[in-house]
Amino acid sequence: MLYCVMIDVNLPADMDPAALAKLKETERLRAIELQESGKFVHLWRVAGRMANVSIFDCDSNDELHELLTSLPMFPYFSLKIVPLAKHPSSIK
Amino acid sequence: MLYCVMIDVNLPADMDPAALAKLKETERLRAIELQESGKFVHLWRVAGRMANVSIFDCDSNDELHELLTSLPMFPYFSLKIVPLAKHPSSIK
Amino acid sequence: MLYCVMIDVNLPADMDPAALAKLKETERLRAIELQESGKFVHLWRVAGRMANVSIFDCDSNDELHELLTSLPMFPYFSLKIVPLAKHPSSIK
Amino acid sequence: MLYCVMIDVNLPADMDPAALAKLKETERLRAIELQESGKFVHLWRVAGRMANVSIFDCDSNDELHELLTSLPMFPYFSLKIVPLAKHPSSIK
Amino acid sequence: MLYCVMIDVNLPADMDPAALAKLKETERLRAIELQESGKFVHLWRVAGRMANVSIFDCDSNDELHELLTSLPMFPYFSLKIVPLAKHPSSIK
Amino acid sequence: MLYCVMIDVNLPADMDPAALAKLKETERLRAIELQESGKFVHLWRVAGRMANVSIFDCDSNDELHELLTSLPMFPYFSLKIVPLAKHPSSIK
Amino acid sequence: MLYCVMIDVNLPADMDPAALAKLKETERLRAIELQESGKFVHLWRVAGRMANVSIFDCDSNDELHELLTSLPMFPYFSLKIVPLAKHPSSIK
Amino acid sequence: MLYCVMIDVNLPADMDPAALAKLKETERLRAIELQESGKFVHLWRVAGRMANVSIFDCDSNDELHELLTSLPMFPYFSLKIVPLAKHPSSIK
Amino acid sequence: MLYCVMIDVNLPADMDPAALAKLKETERLRAIELQESGKFVHLWRVAGRMANVSIFDCDSNDELHELLTSLPMFPYFSLKIVPLAKHPSSIK
Amino acid sequence: MLYCVMIDVNLPADMDPAALAKLKETERLRAIELQESGKFVHLWRVAGRMANVSIFDCDSNDELHELLTSLPMFPYFSLKIVPLAKHPSSIK
Repeated sequence: MLYCVMIDVNLPADMDPAALAKLKETERLRAIELQESGKFVHLWRVAGRMANVSIFDCDSNDELHELLTSLPMFPYFSLKIVPLAKHPSSIK
Repeated sequence: MLYCVMIDVNLPADMDPAALAKLKETERLRAIELQESGKFVHLWRVAGRMANVSIFDCDSNDELHELLTSLPMFPYFSLKIVPLAKHPSSIK
Repeated sequence: MLYCVMIDVNLPADMDPAALAKLKETERLRAIELQESGKFVHLWRVAGRMANVSIFDCDSNDELHELLTSLPMFPYFSLKIVPLAKHPSSIK
Repeated sequence: MLYCVMIDVNLPADMDPAALAKLKETERLRAIELQESGKFVHLWRVAGRMANVSIFDCDSNDELHELLTSLPMFPYFSLKIVPLAKHPSSIK
Repeated sequence: MLYCVMIDVNLPADMDPAALAKLKETERLRAIELQESGKFVHLWRVAGRMANVSIFDCDSNDELHELLTSLPMFPYFSLKIVPLAKHPSSIK
Repeated sequence: MLYCVMIDVNLPADMDPAALAKLKETERLRAIELQESGKFVHLWRVAGRMANVSIFDCDSNDELHELLTSLPMFPYFSLKIVPLAKHPSSIK
Repeated sequence: MLYCVMIDVNLPADMDPAALAKLKETERLRAIELQESGKFVHLWRVAGRMANVSIFDCDSNDELHELLTSLPMFPYFSLKIVPLAKHPSSIK
Repeated sequence: MLYCVMIDVNLPADMDPAALAKLKETERLRAIELQESGKFVHLWRVAGRMANVSIFDCDSNDELHELLTSLPMFPYFSLKIVPLAKHPSSIK
Repeated sequence: MLYCVMIDVNLPADMDPAALAKLKETERLRAIELQESGKFVHLWRVAGRMANVSIFDCDSNDELHELLTSLPMFPYFSLKIVPLAKHPSSIK
Repeated sequence: MLYCVMIDVNLPADMDPAALAKLKETERLRAIELQESGKFVHLWRVAGRMANVSIFDCDSNDELHELLTSLPMFPYFSLKIVPLAKHPSSIK
């Protein structure tokens, strides 16, 4: 079951560079881990912004919640979730 | 080059049923044609609404414009386009 | 799996009274049918408005889409869906 | 008399972890207490966000105000209240 | 129990003058009737607009819903309801 | 001449408790003083929020400005003013 | 006592040209009459739009309401009123 | 003096095809005429939408108003104007 | 050439009183200077808010930019500019 | 391929003057460098605001992302990107 998740990452402009670098690295590792699990099926950058468009494939709303809150940058997210269904004209 | 295209389809509630059926069928055929061309790479329905989340793969903004305006339901769309870039944490 | 569905019903103010009465009755019957199936677990009226707050219990986003679009007033809905998860402080 | 209360919890991202843990625990205890009183009838998490959808059953607007402001996280809430009435098609 | 009800009246600009006059008169009579019942305690016009600020005193959300939908212009309303509580600094 | 004034009070969540208590008390005293003068005719709490709906009776826009800015919490207000006129259906 | 009134004029794009010409002329005459009375002190066009910025000088909110609703295009207005007060740095 | 003008063209979806074709042609001719005059310096299509981003070079706000209202599709425009100034880092 | 400039002044609620008093005084002096130059033709306070409605008379967008940025409180402004043109019904 | 990029620069009002001056200078140098490369084809100031309207000419969404994030003030931007296509009435 798919969800489109649009995330804006609101990092403070004056964040400590070392803390920021560490946060980005732990975020990157967790994002890779989730992608390799098959639950996080697409991850795109919104051009020109600290924002992402993502597609998650989960068994339930609860699982989606668990995955998103496991991301280290979760406290800095403002996000919007769109539950997706099969489109009658999709050939997939 | 990818674009996320979010489309709301604002069909009048009192549309003539035959005209509506015909419009839906021509839309479906064109959507399939675009998917088979490889340019229209994902098409999902927004659960509970006459709305879609789509991913297009185009050579340019002009091509994207041409493809979207070739859809028979284009006059009824209100849409939002998000140009996508590669995400540094994507494994694809 | 629960979803909170907030629906505004935008019926034209000048709708034919007989057509409106018939639409309301078929809507009512379908709403009762969905409630009796156990899928449509709560249905409340927003005080002072032609609007509802509903809770649906579905197996998937696809099932939610199917149920909502089966309601006769669907073409007049503008709606917002909030996927729900278990709250850690809920005693249920 | 029912109210739907939609709450976003805007905790600062850099809150002290011990203070945060304590705040979460006092909030949890008060939420349980209110649920056991029968006044706080449903509590759901919005999937993927620090946000809730709640249903309160109160004797008056004043009681609703008293209950909400008794929650320890109240100063961090931005919330929206929808007064609910019986829906003519509800089977409950 | 008090509610502040803000109403915009969206009458079509090309409404038939006789129908409009009749609608205004039946609306006026019902508004007077509700005021005399003691349920509709304040009614003010928003300066420069076809809009009102009203205060209702009702026993429940259901009663508020019943009163508002009994107004002949209800189908043309877009409205916002604010449930009111006693203010700790009010001298009334 | 009446004005409806809707005020959100945006106090910082981490305000010093003693300063907050003092601010609340001076605010309460000034609100009482204005009510006793007959200029501040209604003061209601918005249920569930640090917000008010107020009705002021002033001789001019200038007087309204003077009264509102004399409230100690004014620097924390975000407010919206609706100038009111007599409604043709009001019985007062 | 001054008010800034921002008006968008929402004339239907397919209005009958003769009716439109007549409406514009009666509007123009009434606007001139109000300006000559000294109540309508400034009238500017918003560049590039069917919209105005106006300054009215009235004795009360009621008078402002009376003047605005006397304009023939009033049913097509969407407007926003800002009550003005003397600015401490104004040299007038 | 430059202005950025963002225009959405809200043509009715059911417009008569011959009237639409004629309107588009007269619009095109006037747009070309304005470009050749040197006043309409850039004209871009917003990809995927019936919308434009334009740059006008005018002597005054009045001239900008005159040029925009001379476009045959003006009654169908919703537009936003941004007055532009020289940027200190521009090399032009 | 006229512009309507609507300014909200977002001063921090906890600003140092001496710094605030000095900022207000330098702002006042510059505002007077601009009014005396004939470029800043109207300055009104929005009743009940730290906000202004102003009318500037400038030779160009660049001059408007220069004047606004010369105000000492400019870093605290959020503002909206409406370029004005002559209204066909204005008698001035 | 062109993009219209609208940028608001949200510098904190209390930024250290020396750090601000240095940031502005590095921003200016990078903006000039990008203009000289031919990728950053127009740069205008929004009159009266710390905001810009820019036109970029890039080979791809990825290149646009790379250029924008290379600007030293990027962490302070809130921006909106409009992908542009050729307009059928453009004479260029």
